[in-house]
Amino acid sequence: MVAAVEERLAHFFVTRREYIAPLGPVVIDAARALENFVLRGGKRTRPAFAWTGWLGAGHSADDPEADAVLTACAALELVQAAALIHDDIIDSSRTRRGFPTVHVDYETRHRDGQWAGDSAHYGASIATLIGDLALAWADDMTRDAGLDPAALHRFGPVWAAMRTEVLGGQMLDIHGEAGGDESVEAALQINRFKTAAYTIERPLHLGAALADADPELIAAYREFGTDIGIAFQLRDDLLGVFGDPAVTGKPSGDDLREGKRTVLIAEALRRADLSDPPAAALIRSSLGTDVTPDEVTELRRILTDLGAVDAVEERIAGLTDQALAALDASTATADAKRQLRAMALAATARSY
Amino acid sequence: MVAAVEERLAHFFVTRREYIAPLGPVVIDAARALENFVLRGGKRTRPAFAWTGWLGAGHSADDPEADAVLTACAALELVQAAALIHDDIIDSSRTRRGFPTVHVDYETRHRDGQWAGDSAHYGASIATLIGDLALAWADDMTRDAGLDPAALHRFGPVWAAMRTEVLGGQMLDIHGEAGGDESVEAALQINRFKTAAYTIERPLHLGAALADADPELIAAYREFGTDIGIAFQLRDDLLGVFGDPAVTGKPSGDDLREGKRTVLIAEALRRADLSDPPAAALIRSSLGTDVTPDEVTELRRILTDLGAVDAVEERIAGLTDQALAALDASTATADAKRQLRAMALAATARSY
Repeated sequence: MVAAVEERLAHFFVTRREYIAPLGPVVIDAARALENFVLRGGKRTRPAFAWTGWLGAGHSADDPEADAVLTACAALELVQAAALIHDDIIDSSRTRRGFPTVHVDYETRHRDGQWAGDSAHYGASIATLIGDLALAWADDMTRDAGLDPAALHRFGPVWAAMRTEVLGGQMLDIHGEAGGDESVEAALQINRFKTAAYTIERPLHLGAALADADPELIAAYREFGTDIGIAFQLRDDLLGVFGDPAVTGKPSGDDLREGKRTVLIAEALRRADLSDPPAAALIRSSLGTDVTPDEVTELRRILTDLGAVDAVEERIAGLTDQALAALDASTATADAKRQLRAMALAATARSY
Repeated sequence: MVAAVEERLAHFFVTRREYIAPLGPVVIDAARALENFVLRGGKRTRPAFAWTGWLGAGHSADDPEADAVLTACAALELVQAAALIHDDIIDSSRTRRGFPTVHVDYETRHRDGQWAGDSAHYGASIATLIGDLALAWADDMTRDAGLDPAALHRFGPVWAAMRTEVLGGQMLDIHGEAGGDESVEAALQINRFKTAAYTIERPLHLGAALADADPELIAAYREFGTDIGIAFQLRDDLLGVFGDPAVTGKPSGDDLREGKRTVLIAEALRRADLSDPPAAALIRSSLGTDVTPDEVTELRRILTDLGAVDAVEERIAGLTDQALAALDASTATADAKRQLRAMALAATARSY
């Protein structure tokens, strides 16, 4: 599946050559930067959920339309590329998956070339446009997938909802950080749209829409997807503080340094405000600063002692149970149920 | 036509409400900012060319598919909104059409609200996402326009080319400024993609594709559109230096202050390097600096004396003649020929 998705993406980039060749080397190079970014890796989570959603509605990889469906599913990786490239500018992230982020790559080219103007601004500008290109190309890829008109028509509104939700969720995230909303509810609302809908719920829904699944299966998929999506983000929040750098690919405690307003932090602050005001003050004054490894260790201890970690673990367990119950009660095929159960557990399992 | 386009856009924004309502007030507000930006004005040039291209292939506003075609044409304004919102971030522009640009609007909200973090970065971040939303919604609007599947299928590749070209053209522009390519050829290449293809050639092509026009008419439209598009940008370049602020809505000589690498400037530098090195040095040292009104007057005199203004005027006249000849020789309807001729002259006429 991963290989098939990557093969579709690689093929799509080949089809773009005729569009960009007349623009010359600067744009050919930018397209190559995007291609490298997209093909460099990632777990292809979104295409996998979409594809499994389609199969689970009673289809098979041998169906005549399977090829077009897989291509449309693969296009989710281009939306993801756009989201990540723009997110990295917004979050001022310097690396992703062990490579410089796109804006840092272009910033470096500018600096090395001793070009005119501000290197960082140049990097952000070109990366903004490369992200835009990814967003436009995601659409082009779905239009060119070879879906029959009825399938493309069913696909449209779900695709629209997904793109609006991920962009809106990202706005909520930025606004929440700026506005200092520390509530668990605000963090959950961001999770709901920025991650859950976009990563699992809508991909499954897209697969179901392509399959022309019945409304009951769509409802079950969406319930499963929302719950697992939120649980997945909660697991990611725990990994962002407690994860092993060798596993996460990010420096230890990186979320603390970034000052991310996660449910974990919101839960800890809520508890500390009631029971341990000095701990609350310490969390607030440390978040978003360049904390040392010793400070990370101390903050971990505080989050654990406050019971915030256990509370998040309980939430993950509860959401996972609820999601699996919705899946079990659905009309999805037995194969898809097995597959989705495994994907749900992999996305939410304790691994540190 | 303008009113009809705006009515379609206003209606489209109403259809987005169901998508954004669950996201809450922050996103509802961002969508309103986008709606205000889109409905605030502009000449609706791109929808007008697309619609006229469709009519010129032998269609009438009374045809049953006219409604869907007009909606698809109106969606060009959402691509344009995305391009302008991101351009304004990239160019650090503070105002557009007499209003604060979107990123400045959000920067001000952040500052007035005394929120956490850097106001300018917050403004750019939210505006990046609002631009992304416009780009995604442009696609949604074409998918929802009600085009029949065959028309939507013909529309796709032209729509893809147009979006890739405008983003690529913008990359060329940024890269050209940074790399200091001062050649007339480089400036023309940027014009070709950033303006000509995007503003006139591809909109006409889109209209022709929707009409299922014959290849000869498409070729004639594209030739006309490319030439008039480049001429339009050359006129805009002259206005950017010589235009009356009351007409252009921009401070006098604004392009000089921005340091824009236009054909006019490239032509002037080419001539000055051969005949008047001190003038070349003065242009190079003034461009992109905060020139005074007296310095603007002096630079205007130099550009004129070098013959660069006349050279650009000649280029405009030549391109316009060539474009009108292609139009006259085409199979477009007599009405469309009249209309396109008037639009071409309005876009390129000397008006200062």
